[in-house]
Amino acid sequence: MERILTTELTAHAGERVLLRGWLHRQRRLSRVSFLVLRDRAGVAQVVLSGGQPQSLGPETVLEVEGLAVATPQAPGGAEVHEAAVRVLAEPAAPPPVELHRPQPRESLPTRLDAAAVSLRHPAVRERFRLAARAVAAYRSELDALGFVEIHTPKLVGTATESGATVFRVDYFGRDAFLAQSPQLYKQTMVGVFERVYEIGPVFRAEPHETGRHLAEYVSLDAELAFIRDHRDVIDVLRRVVPAMIEAVGQAPPAEVPVVRFEDVRSGDEPDLSPADERRICAEHGELVFVEGFPTAKRAFYTHPDPERPEWSRGFDLLYRGVEIVTGSQRLHRYEDYRRVLAERGLPEAPFASYLDAFRYGMPPHGGFGFGLARFLAQALGLGNLREVTLFPRDRNRLQP
Amino acid sequence: MERILTTELTAHAGERVLLRGWLHRQRRLSRVSFLVLRDRAGVAQVVLSGGQPQSLGPETVLEVEGLAVATPQAPGGAEVHEAAVRVLAEPAAPPPVELHRPQPRESLPTRLDAAAVSLRHPAVRERFRLAARAVAAYRSELDALGFVEIHTPKLVGTATESGATVFRVDYFGRDAFLAQSPQLYKQTMVGVFERVYEIGPVFRAEPHETGRHLAEYVSLDAELAFIRDHRDVIDVLRRVVPAMIEAVGQAPPAEVPVVRFEDVRSGDEPDLSPADERRICAEHGELVFVEGFPTAKRAFYTHPDPERPEWSRGFDLLYRGVEIVTGSQRLHRYEDYRRVLAERGLPEAPFASYLDAFRYGMPPHGGFGFGLARFLAQALGLGNLREVTLFPRDRNRLQP
Repeated sequence: MERILTTELTAHAGERVLLRGWLHRQRRLSRVSFLVLRDRAGVAQVVLSGGQPQSLGPETVLEVEGLAVATPQAPGGAEVHEAAVRVLAEPAAPPPVELHRPQPRESLPTRLDAAAVSLRHPAVRERFRLAARAVAAYRSELDALGFVEIHTPKLVGTATESGATVFRVDYFGRDAFLAQSPQLYKQTMVGVFERVYEIGPVFRAEPHETGRHLAEYVSLDAELAFIRDHRDVIDVLRRVVPAMIEAVGQAPPAEVPVVRFEDVRSGDEPDLSPADERRICAEHGELVFVEGFPTAKRAFYTHPDPERPEWSRGFDLLYRGVEIVTGSQRLHRYEDYRRVLAERGLPEAPFASYLDAFRYGMPPHGGFGFGLARFLAQALGLGNLREVTLFPRDRNRLQP
Repeated sequence: MERILTTELTAHAGERVLLRGWLHRQRRLSRVSFLVLRDRAGVAQVVLSGGQPQSLGPETVLEVEGLAVATPQAPGGAEVHEAAVRVLAEPAAPPPVELHRPQPRESLPTRLDAAAVSLRHPAVRERFRLAARAVAAYRSELDALGFVEIHTPKLVGTATESGATVFRVDYFGRDAFLAQSPQLYKQTMVGVFERVYEIGPVFRAEPHETGRHLAEYVSLDAELAFIRDHRDVIDVLRRVVPAMIEAVGQAPPAEVPVVRFEDVRSGDEPDLSPADERRICAEHGELVFVEGFPTAKRAFYTHPDPERPEWSRGFDLLYRGVEIVTGSQRLHRYEDYRRVLAERGLPEAPFASYLDAFRYGMPPHGGFGFGLARFLAQALGLGNLREVTLFPRDRNRLQP
């Protein structure tokens, strides 16, 4: 007999069926005993007849054969009767977390320590199914726009963003670093494919122990050539981000306004504070672009506004009061790069192979990058990135 | 006017069009001068009229407006007449490689040093477009089978495969390692989703300087639960690999046989040599599974054949004479893991959080992993993995 999934039970009402999964919960009433079987799709209630194993530990792996019966009061509208239960694998110990409650009750550190089993909680694992859907939506939108997916190295010879948060690797006896972003590579690749994206890990030696920082996260990056200015980059995000919001089961806002940094900052402040980000969303909508940040506050590759070079063509996208995406038009002229490196006191040598991309003819281009977990945390209303990262890494956590 | 791509020129014959791209090649005849413009889609010939810039360096970024004219003898069947050419960005130097020859002529090291520009060669960049298509086919097949895409950490606390080839990272003052594979995490995740896959970088401190080894590569990994044995894993690969072969424009073989290691090895040898792999493909087909390797030669998590435990349920997939995929049924019982770790003299402590996945009930499962570059090199007939890796990393190469 072919195995079916718990969610297919109703469609098989009246038939004998085979289910496989984990013992999610067991309930004994005076005259009858139930078990709830969990598989990758959901859960199903199984009514135990006599002569079946009576004492099974939670998370026992089972195979259940029986009759699918439409039962309006059962979860999902059907349950299994006349069940024969076979144990496929027995747990060696009871799990340190409870998986059958509507939401996990244990503290976050307890759940992270026991990730191997706490991730099985239906409400928790659903977050990661939504993560996969959000990533699929991201790819689907960019594929439709002619972007090519690339894979660039994470072991790099030069710290590219800020030297303070770079991890050092013993690379055959010399120093290498873990890429803090694919920035330099994706810019190089617009010279090849014009439009590229990458989904991959980035690494930040973040000394902060907060809910908003992790030492490793999945970054969604894209870059496109032949733009007029950063507004063309914003137009790509206007397609990508609402599609991701829909993919995780939320309703994207009808309008996504663009406001100017100068118009929304607090007084003369050169950057936005977290309180500013919350205020801007409260005033302008749950998804708001802020453009025109001060050039001096942005990465060296950010293109200034040609009319007023102290203001940049850099922007952020705020979502429900938190910055989730950073992007900009980039510099594209070799001489501009040499000049900004000199102005910022950065040596040219470590950037030599990066500068090559601009030495040999690069069109106007721009792009963006954002953390998958940051997006998910905002979309699902979960405050801590550790709630939406399978095996989070921070200053104190390297296991599991 | 809306920009069109070079490949859309024929469809616009008779119309005025706007193209953007790079000066791929320039040709001057006695009375007329041509330029070939390259964009992300292909190339187009542009006939220059008088009064246009006469001396442009290769890789100059251009905008060309003119009349699309159907011209049977032009490459692609159309060219641009009455062209007005505008320079968008000038190169600072001529490129160190020639991009207009049918195949690159420079040595591999020269091309790798100049990757920022040598990757623009149409024949070279096509390899990476095919790489993206192969990855898309991989995902598409697994999505259709109900697999969920996951992202697991690359910074790990324990070397998981072999201690000899692991990179050490300075992790906030203590030691971390770069993941040599997502093995332990994908097994853990079959306890959550039953079927998972991951596409991401893996890291091997390979001391060898060969065409078949790199220090970092993109690994395609998958794992599935509730299998009978490794043949269920092979069945997944029978869908995935032919789809990838088609995606890169090749014809997959009609049959993919499975042969037994004992039947195809040389004499009593405990493993296959490269010569064996070539011979097996010559005898059995370009895509051949070899099953039943000696348990002692496989990773500790490999499931033995229950009837003859010195032989394993591990297999390789050979493609055109080279092993490209390794897979197996895995052990799934907690006690089995404790036993093999002891038998192999491996300490339990570093694997504690991994063992947790098996402590709390894990179904029979198996999976596979393979390098994207290894697959591509075989499919495209390119001997060196550096030809199919954007920015390869080896003992001596960390730039660009």
